Amino acid sequence: MLFFLLIFMYSSRMDEKIFKKITAIVGAAHCSRDIEEMHCYSYDSSKQTFLPEAVALPDSTDQVAALLKLADRYGFPVVARGAGSGTTGGALPTAGGLVLGTSRLNAILEIDPDNLIAIVQPGVITGEFQQELKKHRLMYPPDPASLKFCTLGGNAAECAGGPSAVKYGVTKDSVIGLEVVLASGEILNTGTRTEKGVVGYDLTRLFIGSEGTLGIITKIITRLQPLPEHKETFLLQSTSLIKATQLVATLLQQNILPCTLEYMDRTAIKLVSDLLPNPPGEDIQAMLIIEIDGSRQHVQEQVHHLKNLTQELTYCSLQHATSEEEVEEIWQARRSISPASYQLSKKKISEDVVVPRTRIPELVEFCESLAEQLGITILTFGHAGDGNIHVNIMTTDNSPEATTKALQAKTDLFHKVISLDGSLSGEHGVGITKSGFLQLELEETSIKVMRQLKNLFDPKNILNPGKIFPDHA
Amino acid sequence: MLFFLLIFMYSSRMDEKIFKKITAIVGAAHCSRDIEEMHCYSYDSSKQTFLPEAVALPDSTDQVAALLKLADRYGFPVVARGAGSGTTGGALPTAGGLVLGTSRLNAILEIDPDNLIAIVQPGVITGEFQQELKKHRLMYPPDPASLKFCTLGGNAAECAGGPSAVKYGVTKDSVIGLEVVLASGEILNTGTRTEKGVVGYDLTRLFIGSEGTLGIITKIITRLQPLPEHKETFLLQSTSLIKATQLVATLLQQNILPCTLEYMDRTAIKLVSDLLPNPPGEDIQAMLIIEIDGSRQHVQEQVHHLKNLTQELTYCSLQHATSEEEVEEIWQARRSISPASYQLSKKKISEDVVVPRTRIPELVEFCESLAEQLGITILTFGHAGDGNIHVNIMTTDNSPEATTKALQAKTDLFHKVISLDGSLSGEHGVGITKSGFLQLELEETSIKVMRQLKNLFDPKNILNPGKIFPDHA
Repeated sequence: MLFFLLIFMYSSRMDEKIFKKITAIVGAAHCSRDIEEMHCYSYDSSKQTFLPEAVALPDSTDQVAALLKLADRYGFPVVARGAGSGTTGGALPTAGGLVLGTSRLNAILEIDPDNLIAIVQPGVITGEFQQELKKHRLMYPPDPASLKFCTLGGNAAECAGGPSAVKYGVTKDSVIGLEVVLASGEILNTGTRTEKGVVGYDLTRLFIGSEGTLGIITKIITRLQPLPEHKETFLLQSTSLIKATQLVATLLQQNILPCTLEYMDRTAIKLVSDLLPNPPGEDIQAMLIIEIDGSRQHVQEQVHHLKNLTQELTYCSLQHATSEEEVEEIWQARRSISPASYQLSKKKISEDVVVPRTRIPELVEFCESLAEQLGITILTFGHAGDGNIHVNIMTTDNSPEATTKALQAKTDLFHKVISLDGSLSGEHGVGITKSGFLQLELEETSIKVMRQLKNLFDPKNILNPGKIFPDHA
Repeated sequence: MLFFLLIFMYSSRMDEKIFKKITAIVGAAHCSRDIEEMHCYSYDSSKQTFLPEAVALPDSTDQVAALLKLADRYGFPVVARGAGSGTTGGALPTAGGLVLGTSRLNAILEIDPDNLIAIVQPGVITGEFQQELKKHRLMYPPDPASLKFCTLGGNAAECAGGPSAVKYGVTKDSVIGLEVVLASGEILNTGTRTEKGVVGYDLTRLFIGSEGTLGIITKIITRLQPLPEHKETFLLQSTSLIKATQLVATLLQQNILPCTLEYMDRTAIKLVSDLLPNPPGEDIQAMLIIEIDGSRQHVQEQVHHLKNLTQELTYCSLQHATSEEEVEEIWQARRSISPASYQLSKKKISEDVVVPRTRIPELVEFCESLAEQLGITILTFGHAGDGNIHVNIMTTDNSPEATTKALQAKTDLFHKVISLDGSLSGEHGVGITKSGFLQLELEETSIKVMRQLKNLFDPKNILNPGKIFPDHA
């Protein structure tokens, strides 16, 4: 019976009849089942591929609703896809079915500078939205590394973060309302246009970070901030890995609240040192990128405070980026760590674990000894300000032994993170790459409740099936 | 059948046998069914009374779980109660049953200054928690007017706000994790101890503001802030109501972000003018309390900016509170508005509607004309910074006509608020006083989904039945 059910659920349901109906909804120019085109929608930044059976690019909420009504009726999977920049497989059609691309749902519907909100469609590119807001002297803080191509819908579905999260929070902190199409095709509006609002349950947050498994986001109401007047950038070079990471919590305790507090270890530094304004000496074990934003006077005061605090420390030196070029070089170096890591080996496992800030030294020390013990390379870098460390486990080669070793490192890392009161993901989500570890972080009751929610919102399991929950059909 | 069901659900289920079991769980000293004691748990700040059948004061999560298992088995209602300071009836045992008081769950379990978090039990008094944090130079921002006696559990259940919300957000913005006992008696942990965390659905926010209808909160992980070094307080007196309220949005657009931006209209001012450092002249139509916090230099800069901006305005004057006594007098006046309003009449309807900041002038103008049209008094005051205006509709006497008129005013107000893209509640919740208006703000699909959630978490409807949803059994 179960076998029959699985066959029923996973065999191709995208026959000619259904595809005709999809075509009738979005128009022939905006859907396809050609194999070449399917390949374009088969991958994401997790480097895995799964072919969808069809792709549709709706251009209105009504079209999304019509597609979901169809999926509800015929029982085919629907996987929402922004730019496919996710790293955990959230946008992958692992069970086939329809990829619902949001590239045509790309309008900034409203910018309200007086009330500091905007309303956007999910296909709007994060960086383009930020550029548009700059014209109004406004800011939407979340800044994932992929901001030049990732979409606000994908950001909301995965609850993306970025360097600015240490001061401004992640996507969920900047979204106050949503329009969502449910699995039934019904349209649900959540939240308010106002800063406050406590009428009924908070459904907004339930959908943010739900990875397309509870509904398809078709509109986003974002909170905005006035654009800070000024920003200063510093590079702190440290001869001690542990002390550099200890400094992270100290800065925040001392009322220094940077808008960037990024960290990179020795291995990461070596990869990108040529890109830095002043390539660091051999004795440098870690670096912090520290940025302070706000009014000129506020920045001046915080910088003064930062300089005072660090000049007493013998293990580090603070370099001030005095030109826009230097700032750009620093950021270029930071953003190049991940791509440059492929110089070390062609395959890696990237994790975005998070621990309480004071536990970062323990985490990076653990990664160092794990690498030594297994004879592999592990890079650590990332958003130290909020304890969110990117751990890249490099596989030595394509051999089964190397893969086994890397997976062992990942498993050991995850156990360590949990023992440090941490979380397995700070901003990338669970998708398929972490679903096998869900029960390591979440108790049985949590997983049960989450599964019940999934079943309530999507009883036929058509929305991004196979994600988050390890064995969910 | 329905009649039978209602009888079954609402008739007394608290017989001797069940009360004995309650006694076995919490001890005879910590539960009661004496009628005198039941009166103490029958009211809240909504001024309505409903007698419970029993009260229990558990002192551990396990005791709460045991009580809920009992309720699940015997089908009696359980109403969680902090200090009973809520204004919408959230803590009222409208269907009888057991009041579960949190007064003995009052431990601050942990303050972690290094990671800027704390873990508390729900019965901790908000103001006492804040005092304790001050010793560590830390701050938990949410500051409801009742902070001297309200509890963190009640704040979380209702998603309480306060004057500081304009800068620091409401309760949901300061809570990152919860321990909750579900209707089944199972214990659920949500969220993380870390700033970030996106593993699975965001269950924390689902419980915050759920008014005790989805589970009983037994632990709260709060985010903390370093205590601001300095604060300055100003009173802005305006000869124009409209212009004063227009100024609210202007200040925020101009990058002045006060930690208090409170407003009071002419009627409110008259009630408390004797308490103010310099009683305002007859021509004053509105006042703003403006407070700026942060480092000394930051405050200085913002104050300079504020003075520059307001000195050009002919309709207002800015008074600087130069001593702690003056600051205290201003706050004493602000906090006295609500109690002092009973000088005008013995009964009132208090609402905490919220509109986008730029729509505040339209809202207060509407309230003025509504009062005139109906021949009644309406006070407007409150948290203008986030558009959250307290509207007090004073009933002229106890006659049915006066009550009808006041209810008419409330209904008209709510319709106006919705037409201004607002919400019926910014921080008080729905409870029983606003449940009849739920469908005015929320679409049918929203209400349906929320009811489904209620049913999922509490299929026997034992958790605070009759709240939020108008006709929920």
